[in-house]
Amino acid sequence: MTASLRNKTYRQLFARAEAGGKLTPFNRFMVVVIIAAVALSIIGTEPTIVRSHRNAFIALEMFFGVVFAVEYAGRVWSVAESDGDGSALGKRLRFIVSPMAIIDLVVVVASLSPFFFSDAAILRLVRLLRLAALAKFGRFSRALQELARAIAERRYELFVTMALAGMLLLFGATALYWAEREVQPEAFGSIPRSLWWSIITLTTVGYGDVSPITPIGKFLASLVALGGIGLVAMPTGIMAAAFSEAMQRHREAAAEEAAANPI
Amino acid sequence: MTASLRNKTYRQLFARAEAGGKLTPFNRFMVVVIIAAVALSIIGTEPTIVRSHRNAFIALEMFFGVVFAVEYAGRVWSVAESDGDGSALGKRLRFIVSPMAIIDLVVVVASLSPFFFSDAAILRLVRLLRLAALAKFGRFSRALQELARAIAERRYELFVTMALAGMLLLFGATALYWAEREVQPEAFGSIPRSLWWSIITLTTVGYGDVSPITPIGKFLASLVALGGIGLVAMPTGIMAAAFSEAMQRHREAAAEEAAANPI
Amino acid sequence: MTASLRNKTYRQLFARAEAGGKLTPFNRFMVVVIIAAVALSIIGTEPTIVRSHRNAFIALEMFFGVVFAVEYAGRVWSVAESDGDGSALGKRLRFIVSPMAIIDLVVVVASLSPFFFSDAAILRLVRLLRLAALAKFGRFSRALQELARAIAERRYELFVTMALAGMLLLFGATALYWAEREVQPEAFGSIPRSLWWSIITLTTVGYGDVSPITPIGKFLASLVALGGIGLVAMPTGIMAAAFSEAMQRHREAAAEEAAANPI
Amino acid sequence: MTASLRNKTYRQLFARAEAGGKLTPFNRFMVVVIIAAVALSIIGTEPTIVRSHRNAFIALEMFFGVVFAVEYAGRVWSVAESDGDGSALGKRLRFIVSPMAIIDLVVVVASLSPFFFSDAAILRLVRLLRLAALAKFGRFSRALQELARAIAERRYELFVTMALAGMLLLFGATALYWAEREVQPEAFGSIPRSLWWSIITLTTVGYGDVSPITPIGKFLASLVALGGIGLVAMPTGIMAAAFSEAMQRHREAAAEEAAANPI
Repeated sequence: MTASLRNKTYRQLFARAEAGGKLTPFNRFMVVVIIAAVALSIIGTEPTIVRSHRNAFIALEMFFGVVFAVEYAGRVWSVAESDGDGSALGKRLRFIVSPMAIIDLVVVVASLSPFFFSDAAILRLVRLLRLAALAKFGRFSRALQELARAIAERRYELFVTMALAGMLLLFGATALYWAEREVQPEAFGSIPRSLWWSIITLTTVGYGDVSPITPIGKFLASLVALGGIGLVAMPTGIMAAAFSEAMQRHREAAAEEAAANPI
Repeated sequence: MTASLRNKTYRQLFARAEAGGKLTPFNRFMVVVIIAAVALSIIGTEPTIVRSHRNAFIALEMFFGVVFAVEYAGRVWSVAESDGDGSALGKRLRFIVSPMAIIDLVVVVASLSPFFFSDAAILRLVRLLRLAALAKFGRFSRALQELARAIAERRYELFVTMALAGMLLLFGATALYWAEREVQPEAFGSIPRSLWWSIITLTTVGYGDVSPITPIGKFLASLVALGGIGLVAMPTGIMAAAFSEAMQRHREAAAEEAAANPI
Repeated sequence: MTASLRNKTYRQLFARAEAGGKLTPFNRFMVVVIIAAVALSIIGTEPTIVRSHRNAFIALEMFFGVVFAVEYAGRVWSVAESDGDGSALGKRLRFIVSPMAIIDLVVVVASLSPFFFSDAAILRLVRLLRLAALAKFGRFSRALQELARAIAERRYELFVTMALAGMLLLFGATALYWAEREVQPEAFGSIPRSLWWSIITLTTVGYGDVSPITPIGKFLASLVALGGIGLVAMPTGIMAAAFSEAMQRHREAAAEEAAANPI
Repeated sequence: MTASLRNKTYRQLFARAEAGGKLTPFNRFMVVVIIAAVALSIIGTEPTIVRSHRNAFIALEMFFGVVFAVEYAGRVWSVAESDGDGSALGKRLRFIVSPMAIIDLVVVVASLSPFFFSDAAILRLVRLLRLAALAKFGRFSRALQELARAIAERRYELFVTMALAGMLLLFGATALYWAEREVQPEAFGSIPRSLWWSIITLTTVGYGDVSPITPIGKFLASLVALGGIGLVAMPTGIMAAAFSEAMQRHREAAAEEAAANPI
């Protein structure tokens, strides 16, 4: 009887154990809870909103904390139903030290932190950890694993392009350090300072908080910008291509699986 | 006799009813009227121009309003000629509640709004609705439907990349909130405020109204910018690919249609 | 004897008349002269440089003007050797009214303008026309013609994407006009003014001279930026693809030509 | 006996002499030393850090200088073991005048510059040359050679797109010079000054230090931005495609080599 409830709980919580990869009703509920809890954490950092609704924020935070605590307890309890050898206790210990379970526990503690911590500064930082709830989505998503695999396959290209981009960023920073360090010591007085300029320029963000003002500095910055923007964009281009390939594979694998397991 | 005129009107107004998809002479006239009416609406918001030509603007607005009203009346009248079962009244009612007809009516009311509203603030907002005339172009364009279909086919990729981009935007905002909230409380004092920075940075717009000023904030912003720009650009890249595919299909379908229906 | 010199001149000046498309020695000289004359025109607009080298600038300008005048005269004289029917005079008249010859004449007049105009303001504008010398390169380049053809083939895609991009720019401008017109009337007080913001934002240039300051304005700007940047980049993406295709064709055509005409 | 040590040294230092292209233990050590020495050079330009750790910086600099000196001496000594005809002295002289060896020597001198130079201004510049140590990585990387080859193959496309981009930059600069030179003489008072604006705009960096303020200037800048951004991005797009192709070839070549030389 208990085993049967435990088995149902296991099937509900560990969605990927089911064929077809559809989310269970409980996991659909968890997706909504995670999004709501993260939204609450984000909005809860805005002092002008929190000040006037402090109690509502604390009550909702407690509610999500309890939901996450119950989910965590349910996972620890029901993981004994997982396949594989070993005692129920052994399976539970292995689960508790797994990365996903540690994230779950961090989220529970962060959500219920007002019970554990009283120092305001610590509390503020600990509560930021509630955003780790987003990592719980990783449990539902095979797409991320396929992305990680696709990136790993292109690690050589990524390494070479990142090294080239790094050298270019350094070269640009050195050129502007050489040209502008005397007229703008605050912005270009050392290569680490110039690196801020070269990163913001070569990603084409261009805040304008630092920019060359001497003719030779503008000339060098023009050369660096015209020559370098494509190079600095290459690693992200390779990552985008890897992602798009991973999505393609995922779609094909899903289609094959659907063909193999009709219904 | 009336039926014959009504049928001619129907064929003129509902261009897509014709084989080959060419615009009828009346619809070519409407394209010009729509562009002129929208241009008038845009220029009509500039106070320095309107002030000295108020009467000309009102006269032109009335003229376009009357043209749109006549077009709307003509569509309601002639839609009785459309294919399919049902009485003329039934066809007209179905047409009147269709999205395109509602947009047509909104444009008519917005163009003739000086007759209906006298409050200046309401009038100003209602007149903005004249820009909805642009949606009338949707009637002439199969390209948009093919684009919508192509996007729908890639909804999984779009969803995953948008989720990843959203997480990255949130991660960047949280990092800068953590690093800069004390020295720049106005810009980074909460995660929603930091999100403005992370969106403007990761889209590479980079206004420069907010940017990190502490060394650790600049370091984190550099990492976020270098790592995140490609990810945030992925959903738009997928949409662009979907669009280009839809255009390709449209061109091939048009070529096949042209081959099947010579003349 | 004269005919032979004229024919040699013709073959030197009208490089494309030669098989293989290689530049003649004279045309190589002209490429250098054009680049030098354009560089002189550019540098010649900088008052701090011109002031101290006025005579050198005038002398060089005259020299390039005379070279262009001699080239123009040589073309008019030798064009009589071109293939095709008609008298020498007819060929010359047809040449003189061709667009390339008119540009040549404009450049000659602009270079020698100090002889023709004395009013300083007119002179300054006329001398800018010396930059038209760059158009003389068009004579040497088949790449441009292939690019024009490739763009023409994609005119449907270009038209649809430009219409979509235009609507998005207009939509963004209207949204920010609605949200910010009261707090920033100078920057967002009308839709034409807001269009400056939406163009500079959606091209990701982001000067920061105008940006939303209200929360609702920032929210709308975030949506527009995240959703629109890819769409606005599509027409240029299509042009880049057309160009790359044209280059590919050019390369293949050159390879075939080289295979057909060895030597 | 000496020859045997010299041969071992040769095999350690000239990694590419080994089959499989794996780095030797000594070269792995050198990679770490180069990165550390470059990081030291970068951080060493920041006055706030150097001031309080002057002795540590000088000591580390000397250490890296000695390592590079020993490596250089080892290369000169052991290069006599290289394949090919000629005396040991001939091989050494050929090596000493090779670009890589000259860079090695520059790095040694720059690292040990406090022994050779006493003038502070010269010393500061000479020490910047320590960054040339990055070029030592070129020795380990076939990827760069393949990139250079891939770029060389596309030199025609690169030349045409760079010429087009240059013309567009010049056209934009001339348009804004014409529109804004009187109201903003500092920023647009000559075409070279306007070029700074057009480069920073068409690369989409957009610092905002210079931007048009007149309506006609904003209108022209909008046209230039909408039309030109894609064109200016084309050369970097071609370079990125060349790079990606080179990486592909490298991967295939490595796979074939691995298949041909198992173990």
